[in-house]
Amino acid sequence: MPGHNFLFIPGPTNVPDRVRRALALPQEDQRAPDFPQFMLPLFADLKKIFRTESGQIFVFPGSGTGGWEASIANTLSPGDRVLAARFGMFSQKWIDLCQRFGLDVDIIDVEWGEGAPIEEYAARLAADKAHKIKAVLFCHNETATGVTSDVAAMRRALDAARHPALLYVDGVSSIASIDFRMDEWGVDLAVAGSQKGFMLPTGLAIVSVSQKALAARKAAKLSRCFFDFDDMIATNKDGFFPYTPATTLLRALRESVDLLLEEGLENVHARHHRLAEAVRRAIAAWGLKLCAAKPQWYSDTVSAICVPSGFSGADVVATAYRRYNLSLGVGLAKVAGKVYRIGHLGDLNELMILSAITGSEMAMRDVGIPIELGRGVGAAQAYLRETNKAQ
Amino acid sequence: MPGHNFLFIPGPTNVPDRVRRALALPQEDQRAPDFPQFMLPLFADLKKIFRTESGQIFVFPGSGTGGWEASIANTLSPGDRVLAARFGMFSQKWIDLCQRFGLDVDIIDVEWGEGAPIEEYAARLAADKAHKIKAVLFCHNETATGVTSDVAAMRRALDAARHPALLYVDGVSSIASIDFRMDEWGVDLAVAGSQKGFMLPTGLAIVSVSQKALAARKAAKLSRCFFDFDDMIATNKDGFFPYTPATTLLRALRESVDLLLEEGLENVHARHHRLAEAVRRAIAAWGLKLCAAKPQWYSDTVSAICVPSGFSGADVVATAYRRYNLSLGVGLAKVAGKVYRIGHLGDLNELMILSAITGSEMAMRDVGIPIELGRGVGAAQAYLRETNKAQ
Amino acid sequence: MPGHNFLFIPGPTNVPDRVRRALALPQEDQRAPDFPQFMLPLFADLKKIFRTESGQIFVFPGSGTGGWEASIANTLSPGDRVLAARFGMFSQKWIDLCQRFGLDVDIIDVEWGEGAPIEEYAARLAADKAHKIKAVLFCHNETATGVTSDVAAMRRALDAARHPALLYVDGVSSIASIDFRMDEWGVDLAVAGSQKGFMLPTGLAIVSVSQKALAARKAAKLSRCFFDFDDMIATNKDGFFPYTPATTLLRALRESVDLLLEEGLENVHARHHRLAEAVRRAIAAWGLKLCAAKPQWYSDTVSAICVPSGFSGADVVATAYRRYNLSLGVGLAKVAGKVYRIGHLGDLNELMILSAITGSEMAMRDVGIPIELGRGVGAAQAYLRETNKAQ
Amino acid sequence: MPGHNFLFIPGPTNVPDRVRRALALPQEDQRAPDFPQFMLPLFADLKKIFRTESGQIFVFPGSGTGGWEASIANTLSPGDRVLAARFGMFSQKWIDLCQRFGLDVDIIDVEWGEGAPIEEYAARLAADKAHKIKAVLFCHNETATGVTSDVAAMRRALDAARHPALLYVDGVSSIASIDFRMDEWGVDLAVAGSQKGFMLPTGLAIVSVSQKALAARKAAKLSRCFFDFDDMIATNKDGFFPYTPATTLLRALRESVDLLLEEGLENVHARHHRLAEAVRRAIAAWGLKLCAAKPQWYSDTVSAICVPSGFSGADVVATAYRRYNLSLGVGLAKVAGKVYRIGHLGDLNELMILSAITGSEMAMRDVGIPIELGRGVGAAQAYLRETNKAQ
Repeated sequence: MPGHNFLFIPGPTNVPDRVRRALALPQEDQRAPDFPQFMLPLFADLKKIFRTESGQIFVFPGSGTGGWEASIANTLSPGDRVLAARFGMFSQKWIDLCQRFGLDVDIIDVEWGEGAPIEEYAARLAADKAHKIKAVLFCHNETATGVTSDVAAMRRALDAARHPALLYVDGVSSIASIDFRMDEWGVDLAVAGSQKGFMLPTGLAIVSVSQKALAARKAAKLSRCFFDFDDMIATNKDGFFPYTPATTLLRALRESVDLLLEEGLENVHARHHRLAEAVRRAIAAWGLKLCAAKPQWYSDTVSAICVPSGFSGADVVATAYRRYNLSLGVGLAKVAGKVYRIGHLGDLNELMILSAITGSEMAMRDVGIPIELGRGVGAAQAYLRETNKAQ
Repeated sequence: MPGHNFLFIPGPTNVPDRVRRALALPQEDQRAPDFPQFMLPLFADLKKIFRTESGQIFVFPGSGTGGWEASIANTLSPGDRVLAARFGMFSQKWIDLCQRFGLDVDIIDVEWGEGAPIEEYAARLAADKAHKIKAVLFCHNETATGVTSDVAAMRRALDAARHPALLYVDGVSSIASIDFRMDEWGVDLAVAGSQKGFMLPTGLAIVSVSQKALAARKAAKLSRCFFDFDDMIATNKDGFFPYTPATTLLRALRESVDLLLEEGLENVHARHHRLAEAVRRAIAAWGLKLCAAKPQWYSDTVSAICVPSGFSGADVVATAYRRYNLSLGVGLAKVAGKVYRIGHLGDLNELMILSAITGSEMAMRDVGIPIELGRGVGAAQAYLRETNKAQ
Repeated sequence: MPGHNFLFIPGPTNVPDRVRRALALPQEDQRAPDFPQFMLPLFADLKKIFRTESGQIFVFPGSGTGGWEASIANTLSPGDRVLAARFGMFSQKWIDLCQRFGLDVDIIDVEWGEGAPIEEYAARLAADKAHKIKAVLFCHNETATGVTSDVAAMRRALDAARHPALLYVDGVSSIASIDFRMDEWGVDLAVAGSQKGFMLPTGLAIVSVSQKALAARKAAKLSRCFFDFDDMIATNKDGFFPYTPATTLLRALRESVDLLLEEGLENVHARHHRLAEAVRRAIAAWGLKLCAAKPQWYSDTVSAICVPSGFSGADVVATAYRRYNLSLGVGLAKVAGKVYRIGHLGDLNELMILSAITGSEMAMRDVGIPIELGRGVGAAQAYLRETNKAQ
Repeated sequence: MPGHNFLFIPGPTNVPDRVRRALALPQEDQRAPDFPQFMLPLFADLKKIFRTESGQIFVFPGSGTGGWEASIANTLSPGDRVLAARFGMFSQKWIDLCQRFGLDVDIIDVEWGEGAPIEEYAARLAADKAHKIKAVLFCHNETATGVTSDVAAMRRALDAARHPALLYVDGVSSIASIDFRMDEWGVDLAVAGSQKGFMLPTGLAIVSVSQKALAARKAAKLSRCFFDFDDMIATNKDGFFPYTPATTLLRALRESVDLLLEEGLENVHARHHRLAEAVRRAIAAWGLKLCAAKPQWYSDTVSAICVPSGFSGADVVATAYRRYNLSLGVGLAKVAGKVYRIGHLGDLNELMILSAITGSEMAMRDVGIPIELGRGVGAAQAYLRETNKAQ
């Protein structure tokens, strides 16, 4: 098929050319004497992305799921109680993982489309006088529904309750794209994956861990080896790894971290907000609604768009792929068919996001959704013109 | 700048990923015993692209200008009369080249925006009873004005006049993109460049020459060495070259020829027509006009769009580049400022061409041209939806 | 530093150009409707590499260590007894992993440099009348000592003992390089990594599992999620994955599997044997000895070379890297300093392996080892000339 | 065929990975407003490579032959007398080109293997009282015979004769590899190609021209257009080109110029000398002779090795390619069969050059030349060890 594919799923995201070139580098010896000169600054710069000074970064071959597993396996024990809200497929999968590892998950069920329920979290923490809850699981950005929740508020709730539970954040589809502040928000464990805001192929789980969470590993009884923090700590300090690291992805990560820092994290966040808002202007012009129930939860990395009743979001996605070489995200689990998703994170600019809107319009019309072609595009164009800062 | 650049100049065009990968191949020995097994089939397949069986293909390191020079230097002599129409910057430059080589160019001046004047060509040929005109120069697609002319009609005019002049065609921005038939149209010499329909970087002049034109080289008195057909004929027959060929570009050419033949030339032409028509629907919706004066001349590889008086096409282009990472073509020479150009040839699909339209709309509005955002896009979307053949 | 690095560690290995180009492919949607058309044939072809028809292939983001963890976590329970020999760092690390997961490892300690002790394995199996041993762990190729052991003999020993234990094989540095026959040898679980014979960057654990081993997962009580076979089985059958797969590495794996099958597995094995033998000829010419104690154990993928007493293998490696841009393998654990290693697996040919020998000679002389320059090279050249099959 | 090809022809040379990555960059608009910010510093840095401050650099799509043609066509007229020595295929081809362009070439025939005959040049210049000789053609490094001649001595001879002829230097296989000083040596026109010391694919002719030679173009009567200096001068000053430049090769050239300047030209020259000397040590150990007749002419970029009588250099080359994936250079024209050539220029290091020697030994033995395997390698290893400056 001529021309390129337009990739607007919420990860993997488009890999910038500069990063793609790094993926084709020759292999290297991970035990070479100059390898630490590459690796130690990379660890240091990753801390800047997570906005932590006291935390420690771990990079595993894996994916976000591997990052979750590492976070649980290194710090908790079977029977430990954790508190988690379930409001989308990824928060649900995290809970499922905890349960498979024998944790006792106190689940707060929330309507899909709503954000993390800070007040309910607070209530249960307050009720937990015995401090049996060891950890609070918090999904920063629920990729299934396009909902961003308020980590800072969660921290305030923990503090208000004077509860010592660790705060674990799923930042897979938020970190490196939207505002995230590990130290300021008192996050103890944050999980990211390479294939989202880091603009890499899938293959790395990147985890940042506070000293408090690190201390918890002494008592943690879950078995671990591949994801063991101790082995990493022992070797990472010298710039090496306990087993063969994914050096090619690490070289590519060096490039993507450089790209992020060269643009500046604030600028990266502002760009994501602006492109996301353009998508939302288009949605409004179409007369459609987001799955996210309130503006406070609108995600700047992914929009889940409700299709009118009688239509299927899956059809929109299939049509866009087949007819326009456009990859959109389907609705998952509870919202399957009800929504389709536009991922708008990573290496994107104005015309790229407009492509997603243009193609969505055509695919929606193809399946019979009565929107006017050009209407959403025009609204997005107007917003992007007005907010373009180039002279 | 995040995201990729949108390249819509009428060459160089977007290089498909598969071709880009070939550009990074390791170097090779151009005298290796198996080199001919690569080169001879490539020559054979290039003949398919030019639609010639009896002609011979020459590939020089160079550009379209080099191809013109090769065509003149190998077949003509100082003082030879050639007949040419001038109706855009590229037809003009070809004439200039001929004059520098001492040819006597009989120039037909035509309004820019019109096509090659077949009747005037015919009249001058008819008047040339002595057959002093050795060659007719014919610009198939004038890139400066977005005008395609009728090569078959030119051949009919030559035949009607029973004139033996050679027919030279500038196919730089037409061959491999729109219909071109060397043998059927009796073309004696056709010039193409790598960076247009062949979807490669600049660096190759590709010339196809009829046996009649090859015979003319015996009497041709212009000096030549780098571009000498004889040296090429002597070595190409065995799959080699008289001097180091640009093997990397040849490997990439192998890929692009494969892409063209896999898609099928008719499909390639149909795709170019459809994407060009989408651009024209947008232009009509904007209430603007093409530089091309009549539909019969509308080019399927490039559209030169007249900006309303009081505005500058150059401003549109500069704005698109600075604010939206979009590269459009400026107006050249006589039409500088009066038009801007969208190149729509090469490795393109629906959403790619819509990006050019979307970005053009925004840039036009930015410079004050009173078009309604989304209007042109909507017209193009409608046409592309209706004509999409995927189920 | 001009020129390229010469990589002769026993993994990561040199990635062929064709595979490197695949690593730079654009990202794709792992849920695209045509993704299974890519993935299902890849699973089928991987079975050819493992030489299994009834087994099932699993591909995890990870490394060999992850593959080991997957094999243990899916099929065994804390307290289960497994039988394993320890004769090098990698067999040792596998045992350590088992112990961390609460298994009761019956360890056979063997001199480093010797192969897996089939008779002792047999004796312990025979003694295990109650069949408490659930699995036999067998390191096919111990990368630390350059020792290959006899899997077929191990199977015969199991059969002779009529013992139902599962046979687990660490094939990380053997599979895809030297002869391995899952079905014929009755292997129940074989672990490979992407960065060895598969000629890819590190990042994939590739595991092949017999139906018998798969059945064992019902009773297996170890926690698992990221490495869970069940989730993979449920989605892989349709060509999908339970979480985002490392698609870029999978695309590259497609290329490397094609390369292996195009060359033919027997030819791949023969090539590895021939290049390894060339290294051994050089070692003999130097008057040095392999760590591998007997010819029956000589590995065709890696040679651990004993340096004369008074010298350090680590110095040879450091010198080769610093002065000649040559990466060799250091001695690990018990043989640290005593050996250095030449990895000779993956995408290699005659002149490549001769480079490793040439550079080794120079580095050995640099640290004072009294070998004659050119002597080992000459012996290897002679062997390679004689055994070259090209006309 | 597994493993990579070993390329040791005297051009194209091995392209460094960093440069290869640049070749895969996306296309760009050569008229973009920021293009000059890329191009103007590149012109400036190219002057550093040619060691000229007052000269002007021209970069044409083409090859060395194109560079020669540009140099002649822009500065001379039919009938002009030029003085040239003929002592190898490339000096001969340059003379042939001049003759095709109607120049009157005063040819000094010299035994192949000897260098440019300064005294004979001097004698003819002295005899030319009327200063009819407009230009002296001087082949700095004759690639066919591996002979480097003394440009500085040629300048002294011109000065001693007080002769105003322009000094043209063929530096195709010398510039960017061995010492070349345009200003200091009073060179008026120097020609280089991209595929030698510049470590790029073939496709660029790079020409440096003194103000004196530039002035000569006013009177020059040869036709020119593609290679016209005037068109280049008019547009290059602003960072643009008169026709579409080979931007991809220019981006790659930026990388290779950076590599050269980062290493430092003196270090580049010293490296070439050292690797060339290693080859010569091997040749001496084999008991063979160079085609170059005296040490003063030994080329540091290519060695032409005389095979003993009764053997054919072409057989050595064919055997090396077929059996060892090694590309060597055949003997050309007068020395066809009598020599084979090892190109040792560009991106090379110790183990790379040793590969060429190792493979040469095997191929020579294969065709029956009685050399001892390992002998030449050992001599080269010894020299490279002793002269290695790494600690």
